[in-house]
Amino acid sequence: MPFREKSPVIRQMLAGVKGFRARYYERRPGSMTQLVKDGQHPEILMIGCSDSRVDPALLTMSEPGELFMVRNVANLVPPYQPDGNYHGTSAAIEYAVRVLQVSEVIVIGHSQCGGVQGLIRLRSGEEAKDDFVSPWVSIAASALDPYIDAKTGDLSSGARPDGWPGVAERAVVRTSVDNLMTFPFVRERVEQGTLTLHGWWFDLGTGELWGLNTTSRLFELMD
Amino acid sequence: MPFREKSPVIRQMLAGVKGFRARYYERRPGSMTQLVKDGQHPEILMIGCSDSRVDPALLTMSEPGELFMVRNVANLVPPYQPDGNYHGTSAAIEYAVRVLQVSEVIVIGHSQCGGVQGLIRLRSGEEAKDDFVSPWVSIAASALDPYIDAKTGDLSSGARPDGWPGVAERAVVRTSVDNLMTFPFVRERVEQGTLTLHGWWFDLGTGELWGLNTTSRLFELMD
Amino acid sequence: MPFREKSPVIRQMLAGVKGFRARYYERRPGSMTQLVKDGQHPEILMIGCSDSRVDPALLTMSEPGELFMVRNVANLVPPYQPDGNYHGTSAAIEYAVRVLQVSEVIVIGHSQCGGVQGLIRLRSGEEAKDDFVSPWVSIAASALDPYIDAKTGDLSSGARPDGWPGVAERAVVRTSVDNLMTFPFVRERVEQGTLTLHGWWFDLGTGELWGLNTTSRLFELMD
Amino acid sequence: MPFREKSPVIRQMLAGVKGFRARYYERRPGSMTQLVKDGQHPEILMIGCSDSRVDPALLTMSEPGELFMVRNVANLVPPYQPDGNYHGTSAAIEYAVRVLQVSEVIVIGHSQCGGVQGLIRLRSGEEAKDDFVSPWVSIAASALDPYIDAKTGDLSSGARPDGWPGVAERAVVRTSVDNLMTFPFVRERVEQGTLTLHGWWFDLGTGELWGLNTTSRLFELMD
Repeated sequence: MPFREKSPVIRQMLAGVKGFRARYYERRPGSMTQLVKDGQHPEILMIGCSDSRVDPALLTMSEPGELFMVRNVANLVPPYQPDGNYHGTSAAIEYAVRVLQVSEVIVIGHSQCGGVQGLIRLRSGEEAKDDFVSPWVSIAASALDPYIDAKTGDLSSGARPDGWPGVAERAVVRTSVDNLMTFPFVRERVEQGTLTLHGWWFDLGTGELWGLNTTSRLFELMD
Repeated sequence: MPFREKSPVIRQMLAGVKGFRARYYERRPGSMTQLVKDGQHPEILMIGCSDSRVDPALLTMSEPGELFMVRNVANLVPPYQPDGNYHGTSAAIEYAVRVLQVSEVIVIGHSQCGGVQGLIRLRSGEEAKDDFVSPWVSIAASALDPYIDAKTGDLSSGARPDGWPGVAERAVVRTSVDNLMTFPFVRERVEQGTLTLHGWWFDLGTGELWGLNTTSRLFELMD
Repeated sequence: MPFREKSPVIRQMLAGVKGFRARYYERRPGSMTQLVKDGQHPEILMIGCSDSRVDPALLTMSEPGELFMVRNVANLVPPYQPDGNYHGTSAAIEYAVRVLQVSEVIVIGHSQCGGVQGLIRLRSGEEAKDDFVSPWVSIAASALDPYIDAKTGDLSSGARPDGWPGVAERAVVRTSVDNLMTFPFVRERVEQGTLTLHGWWFDLGTGELWGLNTTSRLFELMD
Repeated sequence: MPFREKSPVIRQMLAGVKGFRARYYERRPGSMTQLVKDGQHPEILMIGCSDSRVDPALLTMSEPGELFMVRNVANLVPPYQPDGNYHGTSAAIEYAVRVLQVSEVIVIGHSQCGGVQGLIRLRSGEEAKDDFVSPWVSIAASALDPYIDAKTGDLSSGARPDGWPGVAERAVVRTSVDNLMTFPFVRERVEQGTLTLHGWWFDLGTGELWGLNTTSRLFELMD
């Protein structure tokens, strides 16, 4: 790992930081100063995908201090498993809910998700050739059960009204929201009414946002 | 989890999405259309903290499509451990490096990091009272070894030229970069010269960005 | 005019320029380089008010190169008067239409317009106490004629369905669009179908935009 | 002027307004509401060029409410001439200084200015073929006097250390600042120390900003 010349894309990142500093520290110094002095008090924990096209801060026109953010492959929440091992997503959920006491958790999935495509291939019987992606996305393996043909064991490829793989991506969001409820400190607050869980799915093709109706368990267009 | 009225902050998020759609789908439709058609081709994997004040996309003035992003508590990379369990951060690293073939990985830490403060308390002998945050931040436990007083076992509180806990936060960034090198597919590409690793530390108080010199292992002001 | 220390607001402006340079010259250098090399080719001439709250570039999410812009008090277009005197607004119209060959001209007025309030006071019989504002806004003096009580000569204060002074502001936009048609080089292109004129009125209170229907001469909500 | 289908560029403008409304009225409603309730209180009058590439609000990262703005061809200020005729730029200066009581006036010129190129052609003896641009830019005709060859009457084309036509553009900015001082209500406030005049020149090629030192009357790089 020897010292190397900076690549053009790294120089552009540094220029971006210079612009951020000009804007938030010199042009409008108030808000960052406040956020350092008072600490962060976000109201929202956002759990999004690592996909470069769906940045939740850009998507929601947010400013520094508004969103406590987890981003991983396929916006997955694993089930509650307090075994002392390394659980990055669970640690962030715990910090957001117990320390920062956010009032909203939003799981946001999206169309064209490479992670969900990997999950679909796995459930179609393709062999995993990776170390981490396949085990990770298998968190949502059972989310695809309703779409498996009982006789052949194949993933149903029938014409679906709401499109495939969109249906799988939305099933994954539903799984993450369900898994959130396996965390005792989440469930407790939801039942108390001090925490609300949201499942969103963003359609990259059209820019439309769909929301999980937690009663009907269906997604509805939000506008 | 009954259906509830949307809170003001959720309505504001939805307004943000509406603004994003107006901007990126109607006002300047080209780039999103392209990103859907051609898929994502980010050059950078960014591993940042979940802290709401340090959003890497805002900090670097990035646009959709530029940064494949992991965000977890304290921007930690666990060591390579391909045991079939759920490893969200490792899955994202694998996807970015092996599937997307990014050319740069940036680990970005920051001052005032609550996760690192938790780690410092743990290493000071305080008992963990949580399920996930303490095990997670202990990934970097040994990063604080050089600062432990050999006789008393206490964390050295001596006047340090570069400030404490900044020194711990920077040690954590160094650990994450070191752990990246335990992934065979990362090490291979770094040695081939097709992948470069970066360790950055952002000072929330001043807006300054410091970069890890991987030769001297010290942080230098970048400008 | 001795040399003075820069005031805080000037230092903030300079910080803004630094941020602009970071963003448009270093972070995303392509578009400015192109605009310098190829010259400007805006499709739109925008004639807006000097009011600080209604910046047309911000209002339309525009980027450098998109809008050729005139801004004066009350977004007024004087009638065609080629007498060799200094006519700033007419010079800009001529440059935009004859040299740059824009295809659209947008006159954009707004609610809470101080210039139009001055015009209303003038037409109410108040004496002018200024050198330039009153003569300038009197360009649109006859626009208020339909609202003058024939008997008393007073401005009608009756309850109007569309609100007052909004009605005066919209009458001023109409006058500016009408005056544009007194310029031979504008009329010619409009009649050829290569130039379209638009009259807009922005409601600062609600964020709604209204557009002049040039057939009915009424304003309609645009959405 | 019959009713016509909206062109693509107009539909994009309307999408921009929709985005502005989402951002400033729904996502962050506070500031616009305040600006309507309290009226505008800008501290700065900015006098800029109509050129689409140099939008002062974008260039200084300003927000609604910050800049009272005049934009005309070549950022010209005519001399004080209170003759009852239509003087748009003078009206805006009067409104900004006497009504809004701004504390700073910034005249901002730029490189590659088409208006100044027209002035250069005029002073080189080319015949004017327009109705308004030539008379308008002749406001600054005498600004080029120092660069006229005494013998031939030609514009000096000698190699100048600071580049040509940049030298003409900066001379025009100097003229506008000088002309501002011919307005009694400007001079009075400048002499009282409650108003400061600034002359800036933006280099489109490099992104550098130069400022007029009103003592030496030379431009200095600002950074």
